[in-house]
Amino acid sequence: MLILALNCGSSSVKYQLFDWAKKEVVAKGMVERVIIGDSFIMHEVPSRETYRREYECPDHQVAIDLIIKTLVDPEHGVVKEINEISAVGHRVVHGGEKFTRSVLIDEQVLEAVKEVQHLAPLHNPPNIAGIEAAQAILPQVPHVAIFDTAFHQTMPEFAYLYPLPYEWYEKYGVRRYGFHGTSHLYVSKRASVLLGKKPAECNIITMHIGNGVSHCAIRGGVSVDTSMGLTPLEGAVMGTRCGDIDPAIPAFMMQKENLSAKEIDSILNKKSGVLGITGRFTDRRDVIEQAQNGDSRCAVALDIEAYRLKKYIGTYMAALGRLDAVVFTAGVGEMGWPIRERTLEGLEGIGIKLDRERNKGAMTRKRETLITSDDSPIKVFVIPTDEELVFTEDVVAILDGTYTDHMNFDYSFARADFVRK
Amino acid sequence: MLILALNCGSSSVKYQLFDWAKKEVVAKGMVERVIIGDSFIMHEVPSRETYRREYECPDHQVAIDLIIKTLVDPEHGVVKEINEISAVGHRVVHGGEKFTRSVLIDEQVLEAVKEVQHLAPLHNPPNIAGIEAAQAILPQVPHVAIFDTAFHQTMPEFAYLYPLPYEWYEKYGVRRYGFHGTSHLYVSKRASVLLGKKPAECNIITMHIGNGVSHCAIRGGVSVDTSMGLTPLEGAVMGTRCGDIDPAIPAFMMQKENLSAKEIDSILNKKSGVLGITGRFTDRRDVIEQAQNGDSRCAVALDIEAYRLKKYIGTYMAALGRLDAVVFTAGVGEMGWPIRERTLEGLEGIGIKLDRERNKGAMTRKRETLITSDDSPIKVFVIPTDEELVFTEDVVAILDGTYTDHMNFDYSFARADFVRK
Repeated sequence: MLILALNCGSSSVKYQLFDWAKKEVVAKGMVERVIIGDSFIMHEVPSRETYRREYECPDHQVAIDLIIKTLVDPEHGVVKEINEISAVGHRVVHGGEKFTRSVLIDEQVLEAVKEVQHLAPLHNPPNIAGIEAAQAILPQVPHVAIFDTAFHQTMPEFAYLYPLPYEWYEKYGVRRYGFHGTSHLYVSKRASVLLGKKPAECNIITMHIGNGVSHCAIRGGVSVDTSMGLTPLEGAVMGTRCGDIDPAIPAFMMQKENLSAKEIDSILNKKSGVLGITGRFTDRRDVIEQAQNGDSRCAVALDIEAYRLKKYIGTYMAALGRLDAVVFTAGVGEMGWPIRERTLEGLEGIGIKLDRERNKGAMTRKRETLITSDDSPIKVFVIPTDEELVFTEDVVAILDGTYTDHMNFDYSFARADFVRK
Repeated sequence: MLILALNCGSSSVKYQLFDWAKKEVVAKGMVERVIIGDSFIMHEVPSRETYRREYECPDHQVAIDLIIKTLVDPEHGVVKEINEISAVGHRVVHGGEKFTRSVLIDEQVLEAVKEVQHLAPLHNPPNIAGIEAAQAILPQVPHVAIFDTAFHQTMPEFAYLYPLPYEWYEKYGVRRYGFHGTSHLYVSKRASVLLGKKPAECNIITMHIGNGVSHCAIRGGVSVDTSMGLTPLEGAVMGTRCGDIDPAIPAFMMQKENLSAKEIDSILNKKSGVLGITGRFTDRRDVIEQAQNGDSRCAVALDIEAYRLKKYIGTYMAALGRLDAVVFTAGVGEMGWPIRERTLEGLEGIGIKLDRERNKGAMTRKRETLITSDDSPIKVFVIPTDEELVFTEDVVAILDGTYTDHMNFDYSFARADFVRK
């Protein structure tokens, strides 16, 4: 059984084809510059060279069509016929309060996703366009929606409600939703396995640090708080997003520079964060290198990022009361040992004893690594995330009729004998 | 030597006359509804009935003149002549980066305060009006400025810089400043005394919870982080201010409800926080009472406030690495035992063992109380704040030429033998 996972952004479509019987990735890749012109596909098949092809994609349907054509291409493809694909899993960023788990897409579901698209105007419309395009191209197979927000729907009201006029919640759905749900799900289940416990017995903080950054407080296997909010702007410092700031600043700067609401939103999302502080970089490797070369703004950008990560560990430690483990994941979380080191140093007093050598050794996206000392009361792990595996397992389980929700479903990666390929 | 402390708000002037030799308050009070009409003075003298007088004050000068007239009034006053007042201490909310300590006001100082008034457009202009009015009425005595922000000027760059375009810091001074400095100063020094240590040896979190709410992480006697930011809107939930929210929400709601920058600023400052959630109350006593009567929005407002206080304890515990004590102060901090209880319960795992009976017993603005059990690794104190005493001591020390800064000056209340009157 082959499962296709699709992730449609505003100008890109990521894909992965997974062979469920063999438990391995058959092909993956990305179409870039969709709609905006000069689009191309990058197609990766294990043990082959990456294949790149220029192909104009004026919309998501042409892009998905290109992906299918590439998958069945006699020379570069991996399957003979389109109907070898059994189902499609679609990443949907915002499920509002309606979706607490992955679902088979029907008209009602698509309608409900459209109803909350005002909450994620940059993300849900391309997700919807991708679903409709894929349904048109692959009408014979089931399509499943996997939501970034679903994992966090277990948050208690006092964690998700903002201290804002209550009517804003009632009329517009202004509350904390949280994102990166499948990543927090995956790495927290893996951490439970590494702790030798069941998810229901563990309190864990997961720190997804990539281009987007979010943290999650997980009590007994369920999300009880997370750092992203109504939108993915809140929380930690990100590549170009500001994260937590004084909420008076947007209106203050609008008045100073005569900016519109859209303009300030764009600056906070695209010109702030690490880019805002350094003025030049979003990639933390550049920042680390230039900080070592004496660039003071790169040095302070690193300090700010690590300091705010450190504070979030404390925040969620207090929220959870008792903590078993902290997990670092995603690009920077998995690879950026200097940022992890700065984040974790000086936390011995609250139960985290960093092993600097182990931490420096954890520079791979392929291995799960303990980076605290053996006598550290709280363990810290680096765990490569695998959101696509969650997509795939949800799709398969929904097809099989065995899916319930992330708390009760028996994911392969939550078992002690799981081996990552 | 009599010292007059003045605190000029947009429509009010608070005052206190302190007898330095006797170390006691001679009189205190407030002129309300200045400028806006129907103004009156409430004048309190120990062991007399409160005196109230209607008196139209179209500006701050008339209000300060009314205070002086009342202080020298043959029937209701406390001094014979105006020249018994030796000096005036003025609260100034925003000192920007220019002021790291209290200063004698001269033309340069007044000019510098005016230069940063754009950072606190609601607060600094009445502060300045009050200084100019008092100088006109009492030209013969020294006037001293005490800044809300000065105590926090020890924050490191990584704690005060926001992850925003760096030019905003350079051009407009957009950074974290923090407020309530004199309160954090006073209660942290008192906590050091109660711990039997020097301020330089203690790591303390101070939680000032009144109408405005701010927290401060204090390492070795100096502020290293604080929850209020560029403005007093950031941080904890307040009576009418939202505190920390997704920074995308202001622009999101401006577009939803067609609001201007000034309008959204006003809603976030005046219609949010506890008032926003409950729809009715800012006074926590009302909220607690109605929550007990089954009002679900009051119940969740309490939960939100306490949960966010709990999280800030964790945040600053991680920032400090090692923690000696937490201090609750100001109206709600001193009186609101149910909020303290909810905040502190479940923190045994991180070293805070609440003593519920001691906590319930701490319902006075007059006594300093330990509310953790004797074996709690981290102590929690309720300490009534006394900002006016800091004002007075700074003024006296500046007159005496003994003042240095808050770190090195020998405040009376930082001594083991200090007795609060």
